[in-house]
Amino acid sequence: MCGVFGIFNHPEAANLSYLGLHALQHRGQESAGVVSSEEGTLHAVRKMGLVADVFSVDQLRGLPGTSAVGHVRYSTAGGSLPKNIQPLTAELRGGAVALAHNGNLVNAEVLRAELEEEGAIFSSNSDTEVILQLMARGREPALIDRLVAALARVEGAYSLVMLSADGLIAARDPHGFRPLVLGRLRRDHSCYVVASETCAFDLIDAERVRDVHPGEILRIDANGLHSEHLPRSRWRFCVFEHVYFARPDSVLDGRAVYELRAAMGEALAREAPVDADLVVPVPDSGVVPALGYARRSGIPFEMGLIRNHYVGRTFIEPQSSIRHFGVKLKLNPVPGLLAGKRVIVVDDSIVRGTTSRKIVKMIRAAGAKEIHLRIASPPVISPCYYGIDTPTRAELLASSHTQAEIARYLTADSVVYLSREGLARAAQASVDYPYCTACFTGDYPIRFTPPTGRRQLRLVEF
Amino acid sequence: MCGVFGIFNHPEAANLSYLGLHALQHRGQESAGVVSSEEGTLHAVRKMGLVADVFSVDQLRGLPGTSAVGHVRYSTAGGSLPKNIQPLTAELRGGAVALAHNGNLVNAEVLRAELEEEGAIFSSNSDTEVILQLMARGREPALIDRLVAALARVEGAYSLVMLSADGLIAARDPHGFRPLVLGRLRRDHSCYVVASETCAFDLIDAERVRDVHPGEILRIDANGLHSEHLPRSRWRFCVFEHVYFARPDSVLDGRAVYELRAAMGEALAREAPVDADLVVPVPDSGVVPALGYARRSGIPFEMGLIRNHYVGRTFIEPQSSIRHFGVKLKLNPVPGLLAGKRVIVVDDSIVRGTTSRKIVKMIRAAGAKEIHLRIASPPVISPCYYGIDTPTRAELLASSHTQAEIARYLTADSVVYLSREGLARAAQASVDYPYCTACFTGDYPIRFTPPTGRRQLRLVEF
Amino acid sequence: MCGVFGIFNHPEAANLSYLGLHALQHRGQESAGVVSSEEGTLHAVRKMGLVADVFSVDQLRGLPGTSAVGHVRYSTAGGSLPKNIQPLTAELRGGAVALAHNGNLVNAEVLRAELEEEGAIFSSNSDTEVILQLMARGREPALIDRLVAALARVEGAYSLVMLSADGLIAARDPHGFRPLVLGRLRRDHSCYVVASETCAFDLIDAERVRDVHPGEILRIDANGLHSEHLPRSRWRFCVFEHVYFARPDSVLDGRAVYELRAAMGEALAREAPVDADLVVPVPDSGVVPALGYARRSGIPFEMGLIRNHYVGRTFIEPQSSIRHFGVKLKLNPVPGLLAGKRVIVVDDSIVRGTTSRKIVKMIRAAGAKEIHLRIASPPVISPCYYGIDTPTRAELLASSHTQAEIARYLTADSVVYLSREGLARAAQASVDYPYCTACFTGDYPIRFTPPTGRRQLRLVEF
Amino acid sequence: MCGVFGIFNHPEAANLSYLGLHALQHRGQESAGVVSSEEGTLHAVRKMGLVADVFSVDQLRGLPGTSAVGHVRYSTAGGSLPKNIQPLTAELRGGAVALAHNGNLVNAEVLRAELEEEGAIFSSNSDTEVILQLMARGREPALIDRLVAALARVEGAYSLVMLSADGLIAARDPHGFRPLVLGRLRRDHSCYVVASETCAFDLIDAERVRDVHPGEILRIDANGLHSEHLPRSRWRFCVFEHVYFARPDSVLDGRAVYELRAAMGEALAREAPVDADLVVPVPDSGVVPALGYARRSGIPFEMGLIRNHYVGRTFIEPQSSIRHFGVKLKLNPVPGLLAGKRVIVVDDSIVRGTTSRKIVKMIRAAGAKEIHLRIASPPVISPCYYGIDTPTRAELLASSHTQAEIARYLTADSVVYLSREGLARAAQASVDYPYCTACFTGDYPIRFTPPTGRRQLRLVEF
Repeated sequence: MCGVFGIFNHPEAANLSYLGLHALQHRGQESAGVVSSEEGTLHAVRKMGLVADVFSVDQLRGLPGTSAVGHVRYSTAGGSLPKNIQPLTAELRGGAVALAHNGNLVNAEVLRAELEEEGAIFSSNSDTEVILQLMARGREPALIDRLVAALARVEGAYSLVMLSADGLIAARDPHGFRPLVLGRLRRDHSCYVVASETCAFDLIDAERVRDVHPGEILRIDANGLHSEHLPRSRWRFCVFEHVYFARPDSVLDGRAVYELRAAMGEALAREAPVDADLVVPVPDSGVVPALGYARRSGIPFEMGLIRNHYVGRTFIEPQSSIRHFGVKLKLNPVPGLLAGKRVIVVDDSIVRGTTSRKIVKMIRAAGAKEIHLRIASPPVISPCYYGIDTPTRAELLASSHTQAEIARYLTADSVVYLSREGLARAAQASVDYPYCTACFTGDYPIRFTPPTGRRQLRLVEF
Repeated sequence: MCGVFGIFNHPEAANLSYLGLHALQHRGQESAGVVSSEEGTLHAVRKMGLVADVFSVDQLRGLPGTSAVGHVRYSTAGGSLPKNIQPLTAELRGGAVALAHNGNLVNAEVLRAELEEEGAIFSSNSDTEVILQLMARGREPALIDRLVAALARVEGAYSLVMLSADGLIAARDPHGFRPLVLGRLRRDHSCYVVASETCAFDLIDAERVRDVHPGEILRIDANGLHSEHLPRSRWRFCVFEHVYFARPDSVLDGRAVYELRAAMGEALAREAPVDADLVVPVPDSGVVPALGYARRSGIPFEMGLIRNHYVGRTFIEPQSSIRHFGVKLKLNPVPGLLAGKRVIVVDDSIVRGTTSRKIVKMIRAAGAKEIHLRIASPPVISPCYYGIDTPTRAELLASSHTQAEIARYLTADSVVYLSREGLARAAQASVDYPYCTACFTGDYPIRFTPPTGRRQLRLVEF
Repeated sequence: MCGVFGIFNHPEAANLSYLGLHALQHRGQESAGVVSSEEGTLHAVRKMGLVADVFSVDQLRGLPGTSAVGHVRYSTAGGSLPKNIQPLTAELRGGAVALAHNGNLVNAEVLRAELEEEGAIFSSNSDTEVILQLMARGREPALIDRLVAALARVEGAYSLVMLSADGLIAARDPHGFRPLVLGRLRRDHSCYVVASETCAFDLIDAERVRDVHPGEILRIDANGLHSEHLPRSRWRFCVFEHVYFARPDSVLDGRAVYELRAAMGEALAREAPVDADLVVPVPDSGVVPALGYARRSGIPFEMGLIRNHYVGRTFIEPQSSIRHFGVKLKLNPVPGLLAGKRVIVVDDSIVRGTTSRKIVKMIRAAGAKEIHLRIASPPVISPCYYGIDTPTRAELLASSHTQAEIARYLTADSVVYLSREGLARAAQASVDYPYCTACFTGDYPIRFTPPTGRRQLRLVEF
Repeated sequence: MCGVFGIFNHPEAANLSYLGLHALQHRGQESAGVVSSEEGTLHAVRKMGLVADVFSVDQLRGLPGTSAVGHVRYSTAGGSLPKNIQPLTAELRGGAVALAHNGNLVNAEVLRAELEEEGAIFSSNSDTEVILQLMARGREPALIDRLVAALARVEGAYSLVMLSADGLIAARDPHGFRPLVLGRLRRDHSCYVVASETCAFDLIDAERVRDVHPGEILRIDANGLHSEHLPRSRWRFCVFEHVYFARPDSVLDGRAVYELRAAMGEALAREAPVDADLVVPVPDSGVVPALGYARRSGIPFEMGLIRNHYVGRTFIEPQSSIRHFGVKLKLNPVPGLLAGKRVIVVDDSIVRGTTSRKIVKMIRAAGAKEIHLRIASPPVISPCYYGIDTPTRAELLASSHTQAEIARYLTADSVVYLSREGLARAAQASVDYPYCTACFTGDYPIRFTPPTGRRQLRLVEF
């Protein structure tokens, strides 16, 4: 997963990009970058690390100009290497461009092999660079026309922002897998912003104008907004953004995430009621559906698991086997609260199941009499090829186990998932607005072409 | 504020100390340190930064031995300097010792001046070092006797753990201002642990045995537990630990923090009801009292403010004045949820009021029709001299303003604090167990002697 | 200036490359890199800094394989950026390659513009990348054939080592501007090494086999050595390597640097005798010619200037104007030795003259009665376009001043340069072996095409 | 070994200290520190590393005031720890002081044990801290009187500079083991400087006034210079400073190092002539005596060994055993120059002999027909207890081997040392000015009391 941000026509373009990326930090914690444009020259700062660590005051001062694009990254395609940090930049005939991409191209490897055959040298492992290499070979005079031609050849999920001397371009794949929203500053309507989620607008006092449409290539320049459209496919927004990934204070494709997530919890209460004493969320992603469940069921809501916010990357596992060690670094049950109680534990989803199993055992050790796990989405049975970093099918717990087997494995008294229909209703799916539900159904809107061969370059450290 | 941890008789003493400190990270994020003891030699790792950043696997391997003490620090006395990082260590006649201290000594400056007059050289600015210097001059043969003699001369708040060749010592001042709990490993009852809060026990599979008593000096060595007692004063545990500071999953002096904090919210609902549509907490500290308020009042609870967990230390304030900038880096209202609503906002306390004012304005900007601020503790009117880093009296909003003035300043429709009696009841105060409530009442159990003169050494950087 | 190194068929290829680069450190202190090859996969470590700082034991362990190439760099073309650190690597059709280059291509900008027009994306500012991009577009099946084709298009100075799955390739431009020597390990004649100077062989117990010939493209693989040849031009080895750049313990194109440098000093003594008490070198580059001068003239040699070996990069100039500040950080006269003496100061060359002026004044301040500057090479009047980082013509002191004016500016009693003929004889020039003397004569073997336009990408920091 | 620097009454006191330390860098490369004084407050920057790396422009700006002391350190007593970095600072009754020390106290451990018994807490392992602790306990009102009293109790070698609110103090032990020189700025005679060697004066345009006398305690304040004297012992300046340690451009106790070192070479030529073709120095310390040897003997001097100036700290030794590996990282013979020649190799001294053996073998491998090692000082047979970091007696080659055995071990055709008498004459020793020659003779001016017991604190990393 990744987050993208773009801004046009603001004297503090880099500073606001930095803030926008901070608001999108939940979409990627591995690296961050901002590229600004000043009189046709691009200036870049890109580094491994969190937004707050990557950018110093001095570095932001080194990013002049009134437009900028930014990116936060959790690697899906391309390894964890400095050279893959986005926004990618390149000098093309016609000028330098910077490109930030959220999503995953399913035919990237095929196109890369073709391009290498023709003599292209790739400077990253990123699927995103395919778009730049296609543009570099394009014969159209205008950069935007070369982008349109390049996007006609790529398949998969992409929400893009691109910066060039001509202005800012925002583009979204024809299925609209990943979110991309257009906004403008409240105090200056001539300053446009584009972001993965509306929460980035809130921080910088911008307001949502509309979503970038699936298949739309939106150019923002001194003359205002101009749209071109790729052949439209069926809208297939990723429902997992609503289930888990997006921030609850965002509005995506016109739908408030918090409201949908609460509705999922309510639907779950209707579908899977159980007599119990407490509703306890797995924080933070389970909180909103748990509130919905509690409200609908009338069972009291309690923050029975406390989250430690200081979890770092490298924790030392002691040799003395501590029970539920990994999960305890992050979560701890409130003593007394759970003892002797029948507890409904609400989480947003289960992927591998290893964490859920530890949570159930930890709550049991805290004295709970019964533990009923309620999952506010259907079983995850298939990997995502469109930009979410899920494990292979074999590692997905629900891909090969029944709900009864899952309950037994998780050591819960019962485990019930929200039905696909329940999710569709809660997420306000419709004929005109069907979601991509591949991870829950295996129904893939686009075929994925797996990579062939192996990369031959390995950088130990830059 | 600080957190302390000690462990005796475990082959992975340093590793478990590291984990214990991780669980206590909320008590101090500035620096961290662990000192272990192996056959009479002390080994130390101490650094500025979070626990997860301070210790590498290699450094923990460099801390051999079966007993250890640790410390996390948010500086109150002593500046933010490497030399002040605890545990402090010293070679005394009789052996080396390591000392970790939570609290604040009120006569440290007076004692320091006396000791310097007699020829002592202090190697830190920390009030804690006074205890070591007093011990160094003591004539008693046993280190513990010198500690007892030293503690007889210091006044103020201290929860201490000390490591020497003889074993582990835990001590608490006669008023018991700050918490200190004794536990033991579930799998090995001969391994004792001491920590500021029980949440440190949960992470390492230890169980609470009892609190260290006010005025108790508890020695843990190969022969078991041995207690000595300073002349007992009246128990005066810091009520602000229950209101704000401690983690909600801890049990302090036998009282579960979560339960007390929820009771404060319920009491507030009884004392200060208001007709409204939603109860919204200021996360994270307002969540538990808000649940209590909502439960008692019957008004729906919603997580109307979303917290960004990635807030770093150094944020660049853009020149373009963004509304509510500072608070928005951390909190954002859920759009739609608050519009047109009458909102009860619950927070644990108000210190300066600047953040509360921004929160109220932010919620108003999100469309709330009415905003009623409910504070789950009384007005903070006096600074703390016992280890909590509060501003001077002049900066405390409630020290010079009426509740009506406060409501006007905060731009809230109403502001009501929990009464002192309400807090006392919710916190289960009694004649036998009165709290220190100095910050709310100005009633100081011990007089503070302000420092005279100034320090003459300044380190630019070590 | 740069240094290159390559090794084929040694189990510690990366370790020996690291040592070879250490011996070549004088050729470039800005960055260092090693790329090793193991079963067709390339592994790279490249960083800003000195060889001893760039590589840790762990990083060298991360460079497996039995062949490797390395590079130390002092930037001439391409700015001081991480992405320009060599060896450059690329995945080409046919496999990954790594390329290390010493020299400067004079038509790089023209070729780059052409390649960008055709759709190439450059990932560095380095002229070296042009060779890789030409290879990427080549249609020949074998990589070496594509390299030959690429080199047929570039003009200028290059001594190259290239690593691919097929083996190690060493190549030198048809004029042989820059040095490149072939060697083999004394203990294992099947292990070949290639380096800019023979001093790299001495450190690793290798012996010189022969120089790579001008225009030779030498492939080293499991079958041994194979040569191809570009159309031969007239040999034009850079005489400035012998005057200043190379280490005195190296042998370049069969000539021992020390011997030539001493001969320059002797020639200078014959051409420019002067009655004096002492011969004093400017260390370190003036030491060998000064020994020659002293021997020929019979005037005693003394190390009258002591060099401080700890000069770092960033020195703070105090506001109080200290006489001869800059040069004193590096050199200091021996007190007493120079007072009242007639001193002959010998240096290898004068570029801008600012340092020489400070040295003369410093020696005068130390009490010298007369100062006669003797320069062991002719006046530098023209910039170098073949890989030595000289300033523009306007900044070259001798380009616009007579020797009398120079003596006046430097405040010396006399200044005499070695004549062009004297240099030619001392350097053993001949009809078959004429040097490139462009810096002394303005006689350029190849025309330089200046860059047009400007780069549009700027990285503040990676 | 260490270097000290002090300056009084200059607006850029810290900047000039930094430069002075740079000139003294050869005396200690492990750590560096400067403490400045401004209106009674001391400001310190101290770090591991070279002077040029320790101080940034910002850090020097953080050192205000018109007087300062500085220190470079190569640890002799006290381990390699941040807390031992000098100048040491302490707040004493009467004000803060900073102390920089070159030398070694022979009764430090005894005094430390006494002081700890009385209740002193040491914050370093450094013998220097004993002086501060003695001062802290002194009852005299004036700091200088307490320093005099403290110095009356310590024994051994010390050249000190101390900074306090009262001014700058320079002190030298009664034997005058280590150098200490007084100077003043040429442009401002009211600005005094004190340094270990005069080369520090040259860099900052200061001139030598005189040496600080053995046993002198010299106070420099607004009223000028004031001297007190400890009971005088016999002058015993360390002859090894002239042999090896000091920079050749320094003047110590009125004697020019270069001149003495050349005289040692000349004496060696007289005492140990040999028929040969070349005189070759081991750079850099052998260069000046080799020039003396060559001049006296009439045998040509050549720089037959070239030194690599980029030797770092951590070099990876490859598994493939490279001949003379360690020494080759630093030195390389000039090819051709030595082949078939009878070579006299001149070095300043031999300690363990391991490096000399490698050098001899390396020169032999370069083809030398005969190798005659000439050492410009007598055999080192005893360890130094006065501040030079020599190995134990058992590791000193000459302590247990005859010259014939040494020649055989070093594989040289002959090895001859300068006689003790020859050294005495070359170093201008006299009845009034006898040197400490303990390392050559075992004749110790003061007895050393070895430490008892062990330290119990170990810091893994600060």
